[in-house]
Amino acid sequence: MILLFTDFGLDGPYQGQMKMVLAARAPGIPVIDLMADAPVFRPQEAAYLLAALFPECPEGSVILAVVDHGVGGARPPLACKIAGRWLVGPGNGLLEILVRRYGVEDCREIVPEAGARLTASFHGRDLFAPAAARLALGDVPQAWPEREFPRHADWPDDWAAVIYVDGYGNLMTGLRAASLTADTRLKAGWQEVEKARTFSDLPKGQAFWYENSNGLAEIAVNQGSAAQMLGLKLGNPIVVIPS
Amino acid sequence: MILLFTDFGLDGPYQGQMKMVLAARAPGIPVIDLMADAPVFRPQEAAYLLAALFPECPEGSVILAVVDHGVGGARPPLACKIAGRWLVGPGNGLLEILVRRYGVEDCREIVPEAGARLTASFHGRDLFAPAAARLALGDVPQAWPEREFPRHADWPDDWAAVIYVDGYGNLMTGLRAASLTADTRLKAGWQEVEKARTFSDLPKGQAFWYENSNGLAEIAVNQGSAAQMLGLKLGNPIVVIPS
Amino acid sequence: MILLFTDFGLDGPYQGQMKMVLAARAPGIPVIDLMADAPVFRPQEAAYLLAALFPECPEGSVILAVVDHGVGGARPPLACKIAGRWLVGPGNGLLEILVRRYGVEDCREIVPEAGARLTASFHGRDLFAPAAARLALGDVPQAWPEREFPRHADWPDDWAAVIYVDGYGNLMTGLRAASLTADTRLKAGWQEVEKARTFSDLPKGQAFWYENSNGLAEIAVNQGSAAQMLGLKLGNPIVVIPS
Repeated sequence: MILLFTDFGLDGPYQGQMKMVLAARAPGIPVIDLMADAPVFRPQEAAYLLAALFPECPEGSVILAVVDHGVGGARPPLACKIAGRWLVGPGNGLLEILVRRYGVEDCREIVPEAGARLTASFHGRDLFAPAAARLALGDVPQAWPEREFPRHADWPDDWAAVIYVDGYGNLMTGLRAASLTADTRLKAGWQEVEKARTFSDLPKGQAFWYENSNGLAEIAVNQGSAAQMLGLKLGNPIVVIPS
Repeated sequence: MILLFTDFGLDGPYQGQMKMVLAARAPGIPVIDLMADAPVFRPQEAAYLLAALFPECPEGSVILAVVDHGVGGARPPLACKIAGRWLVGPGNGLLEILVRRYGVEDCREIVPEAGARLTASFHGRDLFAPAAARLALGDVPQAWPEREFPRHADWPDDWAAVIYVDGYGNLMTGLRAASLTADTRLKAGWQEVEKARTFSDLPKGQAFWYENSNGLAEIAVNQGSAAQMLGLKLGNPIVVIPS
Repeated sequence: MILLFTDFGLDGPYQGQMKMVLAARAPGIPVIDLMADAPVFRPQEAAYLLAALFPECPEGSVILAVVDHGVGGARPPLACKIAGRWLVGPGNGLLEILVRRYGVEDCREIVPEAGARLTASFHGRDLFAPAAARLALGDVPQAWPEREFPRHADWPDDWAAVIYVDGYGNLMTGLRAASLTADTRLKAGWQEVEKARTFSDLPKGQAFWYENSNGLAEIAVNQGSAAQMLGLKLGNPIVVIPS
């Protein structure tokens, strides 16, 4: 199957145009919107999110990952095999955390097809989707040269920052819950929050952190918006207060 | 086919993660987002909406219905066969109106698979999606014990309340249009509205009710927002004024 | 494959209900949301947008195009074969620009199936989706009479107006970039903007126009919202200042 992880949003024709390319070139292969609202133009936040979602992506799947504010700029277009899945996307750090956790089995630079259209603003459709279709069909083009994976070595293994704000105002962090302990407190904005098991364990309006369904430390407010109540948004730092 | 009726929204990874489970476990079975913006955390409103959409769900389909504010709490996870379709979801009243209208052929409590992950916050992915995949493949696990359907007997057959507000501000009610007559008036907020056939029959800005495409009485304003104009929102009561 | 181009939005059950009809009647045929947020109730704006997206729709595909403020009114329901694709939708001008650019190989009026439900408010599900399913299966019903395509001859070939505002506030126009020259300026609201290659060529906050990924002239602001900065919205005119 082919999984789409992008910041294009579901509005507009963008996801649909990529799916037309995939359906035409890899007919019969299921295509799933894993997430279309990845952090817009923020490959670092998206990198930690993608790494959290990755373990559930079935082995053998192809992940089309596009968060690419540098489209038309200089980052290399990559196809990387990581833990049995192919990932296709820009070499701007988006795959950094995956590579750090799982290593990279194969790293290639995608070469545009001769004669194919390559617009300046939509490499997702023109370059990455055709590449994902080929990989989904089992074809690793010889014309794509092997290369070093371009590292972002200064990024931390776990990142004490808000990497996604969901529709309820819950704040996902780049911290794996397993990297913390049950009595770790997090300072989020002006408030220190403690760990709880889940929403229903707490009084209404209480802020807390918990291990979310993807293994990340997530800051939430029971029946409220943590983003609003704590005044935090995407990219803002969090402080880990060791127990 | 498998139909998703949830309150997860299309943002975030939630629908996508359920679809990955379904595609991996029930390959080749089509999966359709019937609705991802069912009334959030409101199983009663959602129950009337699901019952209105149900007649069009093809016989033999499996409906994954998750509106589950008690996730991690005590409601039983159910698989119910109703009018030739399997429904999978929380036993919190979400299936009450369906059971009342069609009866229940088979009611079982879903038992988590031995050794499977079961997070506190995402039973849609960890419990209900795997169950739906098994049913879609024709497998009704013997390990799921039969049980009584947990009734919500105090809910009315038709509910004079706003059960959904669409993107245009139209107000769906829990009243089947067939339960009313052509000269029934509805009191919606401070205004009484009469029945009309459709939008184009009325002057701009006029409020009215009509039988919507799912058979429900829906309150609307021609080229305007009924929700704004009448000051109504999800769960608000409506008054039926008999003719 | 069947492509959906509608103004229904992804919220609510509307896209899902059409997909249930398609999956039941044309099993195995892939269905793709090309765009669900086409200009609401504005067939003229939508016509230029659809024409821009059309060249990428694979030959042999069926396009279900519904932007239909006159639903329940008098416009004829059409099935038109244009450049090797079938298009199904209301005869309200939505297909005008396609017909003008490619001609029409076959134009028929869709006749509802005998005995089928036809609600006043949801022809997308009740009339157009069943028609699209038949065409996708290769069945062009003899019962659908041939007819003249109802023209909107007064619409220009390229339209100097905003036809879509995307989530970033970028303004697509109904002007094909190929109809302009590299030194054409566009007057958008109170400001004249020049052509640039892409976003990264410009300082932050600078307005410009560029050829977007669908070949249209699009007005944008680097790292800002052109809609807000220029005070423009859907349907507003643009002025072409020849070089």
